Amino acid sequence: MKILIDTFGADAGYKITIDGAIKALEKRKFTPVFVGNEENIKEYINSRISDYEIIHTDNFISNNEDPVRAIRGKKDASIVLAYNKLKEEGYDGLISAGSTGGLLAGGLFIGGRIKGIKRACLAVSLPSLTDEITLLMDSGANMDCKAEMLYEFALMGKVFLENVMNVDNPKISLLNVGLEEHKGNKLTKETYGLLKESDLNFIGNIESRDLFTSKSNIILADGFDGNIALKTAEGVLKLFGKELKNILYKSSKNKIAGALIKNDLKKLTEKFSADEVGGAPLLGVKSYVYKAHGNANETAFANGILGLMDYIDKDVISKIEGELND
Amino acid sequence: MKILIDTFGADAGYKITIDGAIKALEKRKFTPVFVGNEENIKEYINSRISDYEIIHTDNFISNNEDPVRAIRGKKDASIVLAYNKLKEEGYDGLISAGSTGGLLAGGLFIGGRIKGIKRACLAVSLPSLTDEITLLMDSGANMDCKAEMLYEFALMGKVFLENVMNVDNPKISLLNVGLEEHKGNKLTKETYGLLKESDLNFIGNIESRDLFTSKSNIILADGFDGNIALKTAEGVLKLFGKELKNILYKSSKNKIAGALIKNDLKKLTEKFSADEVGGAPLLGVKSYVYKAHGNANETAFANGILGLMDYIDKDVISKIEGELND
Repeated sequence: MKILIDTFGADAGYKITIDGAIKALEKRKFTPVFVGNEENIKEYINSRISDYEIIHTDNFISNNEDPVRAIRGKKDASIVLAYNKLKEEGYDGLISAGSTGGLLAGGLFIGGRIKGIKRACLAVSLPSLTDEITLLMDSGANMDCKAEMLYEFALMGKVFLENVMNVDNPKISLLNVGLEEHKGNKLTKETYGLLKESDLNFIGNIESRDLFTSKSNIILADGFDGNIALKTAEGVLKLFGKELKNILYKSSKNKIAGALIKNDLKKLTEKFSADEVGGAPLLGVKSYVYKAHGNANETAFANGILGLMDYIDKDVISKIEGELND
Repeated sequence: MKILIDTFGADAGYKITIDGAIKALEKRKFTPVFVGNEENIKEYINSRISDYEIIHTDNFISNNEDPVRAIRGKKDASIVLAYNKLKEEGYDGLISAGSTGGLLAGGLFIGGRIKGIKRACLAVSLPSLTDEITLLMDSGANMDCKAEMLYEFALMGKVFLENVMNVDNPKISLLNVGLEEHKGNKLTKETYGLLKESDLNFIGNIESRDLFTSKSNIILADGFDGNIALKTAEGVLKLFGKELKNILYKSSKNKIAGALIKNDLKKLTEKFSADEVGGAPLLGVKSYVYKAHGNANETAFANGILGLMDYIDKDVISKIEGELND
């Protein structure tokens, strides 16, 4: 299996994408195809692996530019080269920690949409304290959604969860400001109506305070709202964690307490960490594409690559096509 | 000063609204006007105070009903009676922990809007780790907003902060998924343009991970998004707190650690608690109205009453009217 790896886009720099690939190779065989500066990549790999390819470029799409214009104008940006390569026989999937907008625009304009799907979406696995899986869809690809788009996200999420995650008839809910059907904005009211009439296992609205309590397998949201919720959670956890750390270093008495609960706290932090999942599929495009977190570390990136391969193995795109033409 | 107190709507029941009023009376003199079941109220007060009034009713507007229809149809609902009373000479303000929608609809249809303002909004003070004040506007009153509404919220928030909180030329930002001007949805892009051209102290977009880091005094958001962000933060804090508590009770070793840091943890929890603020002004209506949190306790409700009186003292409504007609 050949996996295209965008070496641009990770906050920590290209090295973590290479280290991530090498770490993933310890678990499973595949051929990494690094897209980026050939010299840097070769030098950093430094013979640690031999079965790999490089597609050279020094250009990429940043978070600061208009993604649609960039995809159309920058013919040698890493994402553009990678999407084009994906169309060739033998190249199976792409992972990037770069611009979500760029990845989405590339998916729509180069990769192409799955027939019958209006928009692609990012399905991020939320940290969970139980074994239940919860996908937040959309997590940030589409800033302004329509009810039909959210309905399509639900369909795609169901196929993904049933095939890749072995979740039977996933529970689907709608992110909202209250549980009652009449609550929310125009979008949630319209989406509620669509889902209620559908064959999906729709369990109603869910409030954002229950994002991490595993009540539902798919939480549907506008990409703007999904992203706001994700980043709020991230910010609060970081802030609370920092304050807790300050407490545990404050005095010698507190340092003793810190030493006593150190291991348990570490386990708790890991539960809330995004590193275990490492990435999110971009569902709706005709290529297998995974978005890694911008601040991914080596472990997260490796887990992203492994998740992407699993996604490819299960032939999810054909299955979504099948579901739509049923 | 006469303050109307809706005894319905608090999750914990009418008693906490009475206890809250009595607690506020320890700090400042005023006449509570309780709206609710006369017999229950009298019995529970049980001569603890003598200077009070009661407006008897057993009817109220719940979270489960359509607020506009309820305000128009339920002539004896507590909020309807209270808003009507506010129009009489000598009744100064209203506090309620009940339906936000009901409070808003009452404000628009009974109290009336401030001339020149399209919609009222809830300005919730966010917990802060510094002394800086941050208002989230709107926090949940308007589910679908337009750019002009957010601009008006900013104007009203500025008058409120300058007069009630002594914040000079407050910094105003826009809740968004990224810092760059082109980021976000139609609403944020349009609002960004409006704010950039205005005389307000607009500092740009802010990401939801920075909600609690005091970078800005007013964070503007659609009421839907503001509410999603608030409840996400609430849920994450509750979940993390619960897990931390589990750790500190897990073993005798961990119980020792818990005892050592107990006081510091309590202080940290208080910093993140909403009880200190106790309520949020409904800015944009011609009456002085405060929304208390549904799960307010006695302390939070008392602080809400004190905040409401401060808001009345500073004559904020006239000042907003003045600002609009400048």
